Amino acid sequence: MIVRDLAKAEQSERKIVSEGWDSTRLILKDDNMGFSFHITTIFKDAELHLHYQNHLESVYCVSGTGSVEDLATGEVHQIKPGVIYILDKHDKHILRATTEMKMACVFNPPLNGKEVHDETGAYPLEAETVSD
Amino acid sequence: MIVRDLAKAEQSERKIVSEGWDSTRLILKDDNMGFSFHITTIFKDAELHLHYQNHLESVYCVSGTGSVEDLATGEVHQIKPGVIYILDKHDKHILRATTEMKMACVFNPPLNGKEVHDETGAYPLEAETVSD
Repeated sequence: MIVRDLAKAEQSERKIVSEGWDSTRLILKDDNMGFSFHITTIFKDAELHLHYQNHLESVYCVSGTGSVEDLATGEVHQIKPGVIYILDKHDKHILRATTEMKMACVFNPPLNGKEVHDETGAYPLEAETVSD
Repeated sequence: MIVRDLAKAEQSERKIVSEGWDSTRLILKDDNMGFSFHITTIFKDAELHLHYQNHLESVYCVSGTGSVEDLATGEVHQIKPGVIYILDKHDKHILRATTEMKMACVFNPPLNGKEVHDETGAYPLEAETVSD
């Protein structure tokens, strides 16, 4: 059994800060769970153009409000606590934060640790590993 | 892209109620994500003896307090918001809720939908499927 605490993990290499968001990665590839699990903060007024071509991802809203636009259909889905969006088709999307949002994210395959989005809005399959 | 809302899912077959807990399964095997994702409520004062022999599971505390006892080591880990425990060794454990706890749970392999714990504290690998 592994036990981790977000407050401690935020003080470590597990926290990645980028433009409009930060993400603290509580489970990574190195844990051999077959998925990674992150608590991600989307900053107020951020607009992120994303396209996870190499990963399946689900995003559950713990707090805050915003929207996700599905670029395949043009649909805009409102996000509030309790809403989950599931990128089962590597969906190209735009995530917008009306307020700061806290999201619980799961990736398959798991992230290595140091990934940030490339110019296409994807995470690369390989990246520097983070472990305890 | 699939979008679901916990409030609606709680009114559907996705919500399973058992002794000491309920769980609303927002992602299941049928979604082909390679994991399932559940928002689980552990009722105040519940004590659950669990042993997921067929699954890897992670449990992130969104709200509430309690503890998890690792029966392999005897260690008791306090649970509060931001704490995650990761059953990477199919760890036999006891989960105790001091207050009601809301947990975001990820299972690999994904659950089918209707699983409840068997007499050993495990979920069976096969169970009735729930889908939209």
